[in-house]
Amino acid sequence: MNYPSKLIEQAIDEIAKLPGIGKKSALRMALHLLKRDEKHTLKLAEAIVAMRTQIRYCEQCHNISDTEICGICASKKREASLVCVVEDARDVLAIENTSQYRGLYHVLGGIISPLEGVGPADLKIESLINRITTSQNTENPITEIILGLSPTMEGDTTAFYLTKRIKPFGVKITTIARGIPIGGDLEYADEITLGRSIVSRIVYE
Amino acid sequence: MNYPSKLIEQAIDEIAKLPGIGKKSALRMALHLLKRDEKHTLKLAEAIVAMRTQIRYCEQCHNISDTEICGICASKKREASLVCVVEDARDVLAIENTSQYRGLYHVLGGIISPLEGVGPADLKIESLINRITTSQNTENPITEIILGLSPTMEGDTTAFYLTKRIKPFGVKITTIARGIPIGGDLEYADEITLGRSIVSRIVYE
Repeated sequence: MNYPSKLIEQAIDEIAKLPGIGKKSALRMALHLLKRDEKHTLKLAEAIVAMRTQIRYCEQCHNISDTEICGICASKKREASLVCVVEDARDVLAIENTSQYRGLYHVLGGIISPLEGVGPADLKIESLINRITTSQNTENPITEIILGLSPTMEGDTTAFYLTKRIKPFGVKITTIARGIPIGGDLEYADEITLGRSIVSRIVYE
Repeated sequence: MNYPSKLIEQAIDEIAKLPGIGKKSALRMALHLLKRDEKHTLKLAEAIVAMRTQIRYCEQCHNISDTEICGICASKKREASLVCVVEDARDVLAIENTSQYRGLYHVLGGIISPLEGVGPADLKIESLINRITTSQNTENPITEIILGLSPTMEGDTTAFYLTKRIKPFGVKITTIARGIPIGGDLEYADEITLGRSIVSRIVYE
């Protein structure tokens, strides 16, 4: 497309790099940003800059945080013996929203994906191993690692690698349950999910 | 949702104000901006600021422009007697993409919408009237105004108002054709479109 101005073209190019945004949506957004009060548009740019340059990560779990140690890690109400390993901050938010988990987290910052060139060294895996070994000399050692990874090829690869690394420390390793989603229709479930959910069926007690 | 950091919360709030973006997509974008190279993220913010603060509008047609008079208005290859009135810069791009139109444009900068509090005075309507009257004293007067407005309630209201204002100048007023879209299935066309397309049927010549 021939944009009428270099300035709008540059803005569209940059906006279109955001995930899930194509050129058409980017154009729509750029025109919206132009039409809106200047101060609101500048506020968006400022918020992005502030977030990118000032944000910190929890030194223990690597989740996004405003402080050295995040609110979850610092909380005395959480069970420090339980650590759920997740891919990114979004997963922490998703699990926190369920209000069903009272343990801590460990944010890997990605997932092992040879195709995208992400190996174990790019993730916070050594930090997890350190967390486990350090905790074993304290009053409240980590006793269970929950692998909260997506049931995809990459998730399974990462889970396999983590299991191999963590096993030597004698810590219990679990994974979030896979099966038919609540409210999901059996008839539409894919074969692998349905097959696995029969094999790992739950006993009524 | 309880975001782990005020900085990310502010960024998400601002991103979610963009059209078509909800809180979930905003979170996804914010995490993407955090993960990406800092210089790329800052470039997005800079492009937005530059666009908002430095962009200019063509003094004749009010389309986005880098110069006082835009490329289309300045071109000697375009028919200056033909002016297509559109809602915004997006419509100019859409029509230009068809390569079917060789006239000029007039960008209203919106559409009459009493519900959203947009009246004729908020649009570049006086400027259009001036353009018509001024052109009548030149060698190349405007002879036809094409109303390139959406066939919606607001578009029709704007078209009706414009017709009333332009008629006294004896300029031909036309509108882009309404009918069944090319490739569209007759069976799925709505009644109003189908009805109108029968009433204003085209004669094979």
